[in-house]
Amino acid sequence: MTAPAAKPRFDILGIGNAIVDVVAPVHEAFLSRHDMRKGGMALIDAATAERLYADMPAGQESSGGSVANTCAVAAALGARVAFLGRVADDQLGGVFRHDIAAAGVHFPTPPLAGGAPTARCLIAVTQDGQRTMNTYLGACVAFGPDEVDEVLVAEAAVTYLEGYLFDPPAAQAAFRRAAAAAHAADRAVALSLSDAFCVDRHRAAFRELVSGHVDILFANEAEICALYERDSFEAAAALARQDVALAALTRSEAGSFIVRGAETVEVAAVPTRVVDTTGAGDAYAAGFLAAYTAGRSLASCGRLGSIAAAEVISHLGARPLRDLGGELAALVN
Amino acid sequence: MTAPAAKPRFDILGIGNAIVDVVAPVHEAFLSRHDMRKGGMALIDAATAERLYADMPAGQESSGGSVANTCAVAAALGARVAFLGRVADDQLGGVFRHDIAAAGVHFPTPPLAGGAPTARCLIAVTQDGQRTMNTYLGACVAFGPDEVDEVLVAEAAVTYLEGYLFDPPAAQAAFRRAAAAAHAADRAVALSLSDAFCVDRHRAAFRELVSGHVDILFANEAEICALYERDSFEAAAALARQDVALAALTRSEAGSFIVRGAETVEVAAVPTRVVDTTGAGDAYAAGFLAAYTAGRSLASCGRLGSIAAAEVISHLGARPLRDLGGELAALVN
Repeated sequence: MTAPAAKPRFDILGIGNAIVDVVAPVHEAFLSRHDMRKGGMALIDAATAERLYADMPAGQESSGGSVANTCAVAAALGARVAFLGRVADDQLGGVFRHDIAAAGVHFPTPPLAGGAPTARCLIAVTQDGQRTMNTYLGACVAFGPDEVDEVLVAEAAVTYLEGYLFDPPAAQAAFRRAAAAAHAADRAVALSLSDAFCVDRHRAAFRELVSGHVDILFANEAEICALYERDSFEAAAALARQDVALAALTRSEAGSFIVRGAETVEVAAVPTRVVDTTGAGDAYAAGFLAAYTAGRSLASCGRLGSIAAAEVISHLGARPLRDLGGELAALVN
Repeated sequence: MTAPAAKPRFDILGIGNAIVDVVAPVHEAFLSRHDMRKGGMALIDAATAERLYADMPAGQESSGGSVANTCAVAAALGARVAFLGRVADDQLGGVFRHDIAAAGVHFPTPPLAGGAPTARCLIAVTQDGQRTMNTYLGACVAFGPDEVDEVLVAEAAVTYLEGYLFDPPAAQAAFRRAAAAAHAADRAVALSLSDAFCVDRHRAAFRELVSGHVDILFANEAEICALYERDSFEAAAALARQDVALAALTRSEAGSFIVRGAETVEVAAVPTRVVDTTGAGDAYAAGFLAAYTAGRSLASCGRLGSIAAAEVISHLGARPLRDLGGELAALVN
């Protein structure tokens, strides 16, 4: 039996891609012209990024990255949060660093000097509020095991890993190092599957990680079906229940489905006018983990996830504009 | 009598500061902590920009600049538009160039190499939708008479000058050169006063420019009162009527008041939910000039101004998100 862990310095340590988003409204024709899979995220090289950007309408830039978004939202909800990820020593890296610090997130990773520029994600938002993403990973590819501060991991109640971080080659090793350090300190490891196409790209590695090293799994319907190669949500959720201690599975406007051993909790979505779904899953994970690390019930974890998701999808951009500071305290259990 | 001017290649040529906006929601306490005058624009140096930015919440970046906003909105309304202004050869300069090109605006000014970085405007938006701006002019201070392409000026029906451009030292000379080139080609010169505090900083120069060189003046209530040092809008508007051939004076939710010689046209505002007033005056000028250069009535000029302003104040950011392409054709006269 391990000794009880010391009181954590952070509730959540996120590890993920450090990305600046470029969000622009597009017509459906833009997606077909560039052979984009609506709702997905594709990786692009620098030349393709230049070409797509040149064809995009005027946009708005904001700090993004899936787990970084989660960190910003969780901090807005009152959680103590740190983030590890790699930006370059350039203007967009400065924007990312400013925004995550302004959100109240501790971000100790030094900038990459003399390498690729800060990563950017070109996000095309169609009239129906769906976002289709094309990511140039830039400086993120320089994130590896050396960037994982094991002391920081041991100081966080939950280390939350981004599925997208499986794409940069050195990051899978960073994941394994972080998961090992977390468990050695008796802390929990959470993972977001991020994207069904990302799961397709790395299914075997995800399956091994989820079974062997993940305590809390976040996925939407397409992602969990992709992970277990099942056509039905119910079948995939049943496999998740066997595979991982706790899984929070989101189903867009149908809310979320949370499984923990024999326990099942269904949580409704919070109705809102959908402007831009970018960051919905990230915000859900933020609400869930902020409530979870505060010792709340699974129903409250899901509820806070729904509240946070509804906030960010009601406007352009993946981070909250409304003050969410009182939402955690307002939960009943 | 001058020979009739050749058919213009552009409807509008804007000359102004080329700025990237950083927009963030703040509490009133942020303004008082930094001694900011709510609703105004202050000029700041690089060190102050660093300090203020460090204290600002996370924000969204987007291309801005008063006249550049007007150009983007006018192009969205179907006008043929060009813009002159100075960015640096850096990432934010690339963002500015992309966005104005994506808006359909011809932007031939080459980037400044090896000088100050691209200008940025820190925009603090309070809960009431008011924006308070702090601008670091950066590369804009390198805009001078040499950047005024007289051939381009002669090819534009209206050359539209930004009051804020009086702040960088070399730009007043650029204004005079542009106004002279426009009139030599029998074209019109329009001016936005931009900001009451800007008028205070440069009143004598503005008065001389307006009386001697401006055909179309845009101002809001505070600005026109500041220009003529009058306490009442009516008194200031009466002086504008004598001083300039055509003046379009905006009064927020009270609409606009247009005077041309003995003629007076009052136009209602278009009701909308106000989220962020950034760019309201810029969008009004865009609608007005797009209709004006299309030969529409003064009532239609004001109406299109009101429609464009309502669009941009209904969301964060100064450029339109809704497709405005059909609005000009929908005007009755």
